[in-house]
Amino acid sequence: MSIHSVLVTGSSRGIGFGLVQKFLESDKVGLVIAASRPSATSELLTIKNKKLHLVTLDVTDDDSIVKAVEQVDQIVGSKGLTILVNNAGILQSYGFTDEPNRDVVNQTLDTNITSPMMMAQYFYPLLKRAADSQPGNTFSSSRAAIVNISSILGSIQLAQSSDNGIKKLLDYSVSKAGVNMVSRILSKDLEAYGIACTALHPGWVQTRMGGEHASITLEECVSKLAPSIMSLTQEQNGGFFDRELKAIPF
Amino acid sequence: MSIHSVLVTGSSRGIGFGLVQKFLESDKVGLVIAASRPSATSELLTIKNKKLHLVTLDVTDDDSIVKAVEQVDQIVGSKGLTILVNNAGILQSYGFTDEPNRDVVNQTLDTNITSPMMMAQYFYPLLKRAADSQPGNTFSSSRAAIVNISSILGSIQLAQSSDNGIKKLLDYSVSKAGVNMVSRILSKDLEAYGIACTALHPGWVQTRMGGEHASITLEECVSKLAPSIMSLTQEQNGGFFDRELKAIPF
Ligand SMILES: NC(=O)c1ccc[n+]([C@@H]2O[C@H](COP(=O)([O-])OP(=O)(O)OC[C@H]3O[C@@H](n4cnc5c(N)ncnc54)[C@H](OP(=O)(O)O)[C@@H]3O)[C@@H](O)[C@H]2O)c1
Ligand SMILES: NC(=O)c1ccc[n+]([C@@H]2O[C@H](COP(=O)([O-])OP(=O)(O)OC[C@H]3O[C@@H](n4cnc5c(N)ncnc54)[C@H](OP(=O)(O)O)[C@@H]3O)[C@@H](O)[C@H]2O)c1
Repeated sequence: MSIHSVLVTGSSRGIGFGLVQKFLESDKVGLVIAASRPSATSELLTIKNKKLHLVTLDVTDDDSIVKAVEQVDQIVGSKGLTILVNNAGILQSYGFTDEPNRDVVNQTLDTNITSPMMMAQYFYPLLKRAADSQPGNTFSSSRAAIVNISSILGSIQLAQSSDNGIKKLLDYSVSKAGVNMVSRILSKDLEAYGIACTALHPGWVQTRMGGEHASITLEECVSKLAPSIMSLTQEQNGGFFDRELKAIPF
Repeated sequence: MSIHSVLVTGSSRGIGFGLVQKFLESDKVGLVIAASRPSATSELLTIKNKKLHLVTLDVTDDDSIVKAVEQVDQIVGSKGLTILVNNAGILQSYGFTDEPNRDVVNQTLDTNITSPMMMAQYFYPLLKRAADSQPGNTFSSSRAAIVNISSILGSIQLAQSSDNGIKKLLDYSVSKAGVNMVSRILSKDLEAYGIACTALHPGWVQTRMGGEHASITLEECVSKLAPSIMSLTQEQNGGFFDRELKAIPF
């Protein structure tokens, strides 16, 4: 499919920033909307490209989301938003043996589960517009998509002890299992509207979150992840995959 | 195993209340701690049984949990708390097509995911005491347990559209997938201490939450669920089962 527009959250740095770069380079993509919290130091500000649109967005702040929807509405026009990439996320390194801290856990759940859900709800009209404006208007093919950047740490089947000696991953892993469920349910709820929903694991990537000892570079990640996002079909709807679209068990 | 003590959260009514009754009837169980928010109308107040101890507990309130730990410490003594049943939960009927409401979703996640996690963290010393005080002190057998009352709606593999025409189940289903991950991770984290952790689905039960059209009565539920809880072994550690201990996919 040719992709009218893509929005990436958490694009100030890390995987989100890398995805924006790859989407800008691709002929398949028309408009790239880099959504991020304001940051004077972000490399985003140094990119000169007519396809690129910067939008301020804190995914945990509903007012900020509502304002972003209005701006994106103007940017994408009648063809709507083709792909929403919920990439923004946090890892706070919270473990079972830490002093119990409800606020830390709830903040992780708010950012990594509730925020992608809210983003999908608020951006639904623009996604539906994209789906409606595509040819092949049948109930069986998806014409717009929500991609949630999850993690293999969210696989309940593959779950390990949450303290791996590098980072403590209790709240984080639970949040990624939760967003996998958000993806799965939305894939069912939105199928009839031609909007697909998929959860993707980027790999263990050298970013501020992944740390310098992570197994792959940002380039190794996004050179696979971006093409995978651009090639999603109905087949991946409701599934959980790595950056090369190999299935991961829930 | 003979069970020194069991604590059930959300025991004012519904499945929690039914479990308390069954544990009181059983010869296997020594002490039954019915934890609940204060309620003048709860049937708990009408039960006369020396095994029964009432403790005030709002699972979303850390001060309340800390106070409950102190009281339970006095009640259970040197043999500790053998089984913690995290049963308290809420269903708010929130769906994708509703007006986005972050607070509602976050409240569901706080009650159904974060609270069982906090309960496990705060009650860990009493559970460990129970594990340590049991014979057969090997690393491979569990001598205390955390049971999280989950739901088949939390199965990511079996997930359906979240609006089944009866109730809207978006936040609820996500919360139960999340607590399944809490169970799974704690089963790994606590295995070395002889504490098992398991997620159980009670069935669709006629309670305030389940509604009057639910498929089974409270008696049909707890007459199976309570014996299953009392018979848990290492084999169920980290798994997800129905009230008759048949496995459910994550
Ligand atoms: N790196 C890995 O190994 C790895 C592995 C599996 C999954 N992931 C997932 O991949 C995604 C990106 O991770 P990353 O490695 O690129 O992490 P990162 O380097 O820490 O970057 C996180 C990005 O998310 C943004 N963000 C955080 N909270 C936000 C909020 N409330 N509103 C808007 N933006 C927010 C940050 O923006 P600010 O600059 O404003 O803070 C930043 O742009 C996350 O969902 C993560 O869980 C990463
Ligand atoms: N019924 C079903 O069909 C079904 C199916 C699958 C799973 N489940 C699960 O089974 C568990 C019990 O459900 P139920 O059907 O018995 O529901 P219910 O009849 O609505 O009872 C819920 C219980 O949880 C308590 N509770 C809620 N929030 C609490 C809090 N913050 N602190 C302490 N207690 C709190 C309530 O106490 P108050 O009286 O103080 O409000 C009440 O005792 C829940 O985890 C539910 O998700 C139920």
